[in-house]
Parts: sequence; structure tokens; C-alpha cells
Amino acid sequence: MKRRQFIHKLGTGAAVTAAMVVPQVAVAKKKFRWKMVTAWPRNFPGLGTSANRLAQRITDMSGGRIQVKVYGAKELVPAFEAFDAVSRGTAQMGHAGPYYWKGKGEVFQFFSAVPFGLTAQEVNAWLYHGGGMDLWRELYARFDLIPTAAGNTGAQMAGWFRKEINSLEDLKGLKMRIPGLGGEVLKRAGGTPVNIPGGELFTALQSGAIDATEWVGPYNDLAFGLYKAAKNYYYPGWHEPGSVIECFINRSAFEALPKDLQHIVLGACQAANLDMISELTARNQQALETLVNEHGVKVRPLPDDVLKKLKTLSSEVVEEIAAADPFARKVYASFNRFRKQVSSWSGIAEQAFMRARAL
Amino acid sequence: MKRRQFIHKLGTGAAVTAAMVVPQVAVAKKKFRWKMVTAWPRNFPGLGTSANRLAQRITDMSGGRIQVKVYGAKELVPAFEAFDAVSRGTAQMGHAGPYYWKGKGEVFQFFSAVPFGLTAQEVNAWLYHGGGMDLWRELYARFDLIPTAAGNTGAQMAGWFRKEINSLEDLKGLKMRIPGLGGEVLKRAGGTPVNIPGGELFTALQSGAIDATEWVGPYNDLAFGLYKAAKNYYYPGWHEPGSVIECFINRSAFEALPKDLQHIVLGACQAANLDMISELTARNQQALETLVNEHGVKVRPLPDDVLKKLKTLSSEVVEEIAAADPFARKVYASFNRFRKQVSSWSGIAEQAFMRARAL
Repeated sequence: MKRRQFIHKLGTGAAVTAAMVVPQVAVAKKKFRWKMVTAWPRNFPGLGTSANRLAQRITDMSGGRIQVKVYGAKELVPAFEAFDAVSRGTAQMGHAGPYYWKGKGEVFQFFSAVPFGLTAQEVNAWLYHGGGMDLWRELYARFDLIPTAAGNTGAQMAGWFRKEINSLEDLKGLKMRIPGLGGEVLKRAGGTPVNIPGGELFTALQSGAIDATEWVGPYNDLAFGLYKAAKNYYYPGWHEPGSVIECFINRSAFEALPKDLQHIVLGACQAANLDMISELTARNQQALETLVNEHGVKVRPLPDDVLKKLKTLSSEVVEEIAAADPFARKVYASFNRFRKQVSSWSGIAEQAFMRARAL
Repeated sequence: MKRRQFIHKLGTGAAVTAAMVVPQVAVAKKKFRWKMVTAWPRNFPGLGTSANRLAQRITDMSGGRIQVKVYGAKELVPAFEAFDAVSRGTAQMGHAGPYYWKGKGEVFQFFSAVPFGLTAQEVNAWLYHGGGMDLWRELYARFDLIPTAAGNTGAQMAGWFRKEINSLEDLKGLKMRIPGLGGEVLKRAGGTPVNIPGGELFTALQSGAIDATEWVGPYNDLAFGLYKAAKNYYYPGWHEPGSVIECFINRSAFEALPKDLQHIVLGACQAANLDMISELTARNQQALETLVNEHGVKVRPLPDDVLKKLKTLSSEVVEEIAAADPFARKVYASFNRFRKQVSSWSGIAEQAFMRARAL
């Protein structure tokens, strides 16, 4: 940051009084007041609290040169309007999940969660070191936005079901809140997917407007009280094995920052990305124990034949989306090549280790 | 940062010439020149390059207010003297692995890698949200150091063996480079563990001075050319399921920074932590394919009965260390409680998902 060269005219040696000098010296470094709109209820455990911590981190790292005020869903705009609000500059940052914007293009979902896709560790590898981030930036540039990863849920639970799932038959006619690609897969398995914001889930499940819902995992789900409306809690989260939580930034606002603050904003998001998955990994089992021991929740695995069928349908769905337009094809080619490669590695690394630990 | 109040004496309205004003205005924000000593060869892929990127990130985020110069092993001090060098202030930061300092206390190893312990995702959860970081800081404070996580290797490979391992008998008499707790476990299984710096591994294995060595995983191991000296490459890395790469900072140097730069240094380390595991996850399979297809390496699983025995011995070793002093007992209690809890969760989350993906 260059200081204003306010004294160059003094080079003649002309006299100057204090009254002329003081206001010039008082010119401070420029400060930025940013708004962050989110797709979560304010202070919602795990997601809303992570947005709060990200905002605080940016302020701390910048020594207060950027102040970020966080808005919960509906406080400035509704949950599902965060993207447009930041795109048009109503807010400078948004905190949400890319699949919420599938109405703008199915391809958004590749940056969020792909059924039978990548774990948190794997998707971060694709984004930061596998070409994923460049493709994501290319997509969001059309909307004057710069995207980056700011969190990850880790492998989710398959969801809350009012009735048991013992076979593929039990998915037929099932009305379930499940957004994104997972929803399309459920549809092909005979169910009826719906998408409603997190804050409205409990009421919908309780009233029977839906038969089942997925949300995130034990820590987030406990906070919504979903166990009061359904007792069967299924795993694994085949539809969301490591969902990316995004931060998107208005491009003009970003470009108006000096370079060091640009690095701070993006670096803070990367640190927040690790922070969120760490928090959820630390809290999920405690929450699960509370659900089981205090609220009588039944934790159940989806049967293997159901998982196999869902996997077959998932491939179909993903490949159709990929075939629909050239950009989606490019993203899928990158994603799929990476998945093939990384899942071989994970099979002899994390997966083989966890198996050995349980021997 | 307050500016020097150089004009308060001008309040009388006295005349002042440009010659008097200019040098005062030129007072810049204070700059810091730091040295980072590392335990890796300079620019070593994955570890050395990650140290370089961390240094650059700190400089970028601080707008050049901190310049960090990175030193490879032996450039300023030998690999295994980095800790003492930063403790006494010869350098301001160090980049290494906590188990290298086991000579100062067995308890250091809990912050690095515990056999059959935690994966990268799990150990970060323990450090950032499970109480681990506070305990680590308590330990390093004795040496005037502030530790933090700045990378993770992910689940490693079990190592390179000149002969096949088909039973426990094959571990007897085996001379293997394996530092930390894994080395003690090998000893109880009848082997002879040694610890030598990475840069000396190839020669030791090639000459037959050792029969086997572990290092990290395919990407790092390929760079050392270990495949030229041994063809059997075993998994999983039971001894290092998610090794923490640390950054330790001289306390006085840290405290001399203004608050925003303190946040930048620690935030940059957290971002670097995710960056390293992402890079290694992205590169390992490619490197593994090169090893197998171009260099004739045989990738082999350790037999289950060998893994079971190593697991039993690991529990013994870890519990003995924990019993040896009150601080180690405290750390182990925290670590072990966390492991029990998080491995239950991982079993129905990441592990169950990866199993379903492979169905």
C-alpha cells in the first residue's frame, strides 16, 4: 500500500504549519465492510458457526481491515437467493453449497457432492491439486463470482426414515428431501425427491409431508431435532460422501482488495475448510451416542443390494448430465478420471488402514 | 499498528520545512525476516515443497511484512537439530515431524503418529477440536516453542522390503529404518529398528546396511528412488496412519509480531496443513502407477495375522509410554478416548462409504 505522497510539493522548502500537515498524516489504510449471506440459520451448529468463525478469521488476519458481517438465511435474503445476491453485489460473500444452484445448471453439482463420488480428503485433492478449482472458477466467472472451498461435511448419513428400508421396494413411492444428484437417483429408484431448506425440515418430516430426509450427519441433525420425527437413521451417505461447503465472492469486491487481503480471504477459506471437517469429525460420534442412548434412535446400514442398485443408477444419472453440455462433459471427465485414480489409492491407504485397525 | 506520532510537537503552529518532515513520514511498517529450518532436503517433493509454499503464503498474506527464508536439511543445521535451533532462536520457525524429537521424551510421538492410531482427518479433529492442540502447546512451551500442524502425509505405506513378508517369522532379525513408536513395535516383533534422515535412506537400503525402510507414500518414495534398492512395497501403513507434519515457532519471535501477523502465521499453517494432504492424495496414485508399470514394483498387503500381532504389540508399547510419566498419561488419555470415539464414527462414515463405493 503506497502512502499518499502528500509532501512532494514541500520540496521547495516552503514553510508549512501543523494545521496543514495533521489531516494528511491521519489518512488511514482503507477499510472494507463486507456482508456474508449464508444458506443456514444464524449460528447453526457446524455450518452457521463455521461461517461466523470464517468471518472472524478474516477480520483477525487483516487486523480489522476487512470487517465481515454474517447474515443467517432470511436475514438479508432467503437461503436459496444467496448466490444471486452476491452475484449482483448486494453482499460481497456467500456461504452455501454448490448444489443449491442446480437450477442454473446441473453441472454445479459436480462441485458439491456426487453420489458414490469423493470423500472430503479426496475432493480437496481434486480441487486444490487435481484441476477441480480451475473448472469451478470458470463456471462461477459467468456470474461475476469467485468460488472457493470453505468447509466440508465429511461422509454424511443416508438420512432419517419413518419406516425401515429393507429392500429396493421400500424406496418406491418414498417422498424424501434429498437435493442434487442424489435426488435424481432416488427418483429413478421410484421415489419422489424434494428440496427444501434445512430450517423447514423438521416440520415437513413431523407432519408427514415427507417420509424421509437427509441433512448432514449426527452433529447437525441432532440440532434440528429430526429424531423426534423419525427413528431410523441410515448409513452410509452414498449420495454425499464429502460435500463441499463453498464461499463465493463478488468479483468486483474481490478485485477492489489489495493483494495481501485477497490472499487473506482465500487463505482464511482454506483454513476454514479444514476447520469445519475437523469440528464435525470431532462432534459426530458424541452426537450419535446422544441420539442412540437418549433418544432411542436406531442406526442401520443400507442393505448391500440397495447400495449396489443406487450405485448403478448414480452412474447413469451422472453420465447423462455430463453428456448434456460441453462444459459439463469437461468437468465430468476431470472428476471421473480423478475418482478412478484416487479411489485406487484410498483403497490401499485410508480404507486399508481403517480395516486393519478394526481387525 | 500505531504510527509514530511525529507531529505532536507541531501543535504550536511552528513552521516546519520539508527536510524535517520527509524522513519521519517514510517510517514504514515494521518488517520481519524469518528463517525456517526443515528436516527435509531442500525442495523435496511433498515435504520440502510444502515448506516453500507455506513460507510464500505467509509472505503473500502479510503483504511482505514477514519474509521467510527456507533452509533444507544441513543448510543451516542438520535435519535432526531443527528443534533445538528454533528453541534457542537461531531460526524463528521449523518444519519437521514431532517424532523426530522422541529423544527429548517419548510423549512427543503422540503428536506425530501412533501405530493403529488416527487418520489425517481424525488427527486434525483431535488437534483442532478434541483438545490435542492444547496439550501439544503445553509440551512445547517447555522449550520456548509454539507448535502447530502444517501438513499431513495421510495413511502411509508400510514400507520397502528387500524380501517378502509372509508371516511374523519374516520380521525376526529384520533391520529396518522405522522411527518413533512403530520402531519400538518392530523391536518387540523381533526386528531391529533404526532411525536415519530421509536423505540417507537410499544408500542404506542399497548397500544392505538395512533390510527395509518406510518413508512416506508413493509420491515421496518415488523421489528417493527407493524402488531401485527393494521391490516389495507393502501396505497399509499401520505405524503411520496420518502423520502430522509440524511447524514450530520460537515463542519470543512469535510474541514480537503484531496480532494480525500472529493470526496470519497460524492461519497459513492451517491452510498448508490441508494443502499438503491434498497434494499427496492427488499425486500418490500416479506415482504408484509409475512404480508398478515402469519400475516393476510389487504392491503387497501385509497378512492379517501380521497386522493383528502388530496391533497387539502397539497397544502394549503405547500403554507403557503412557504409564511412564504423568504428562504422557494425560496425553494418552485424551488421545485414546478420542480414538475410540472417532473410529466408531469413521466406521459408519468414511470407511462404510469407501466399502460401498467398491461394492
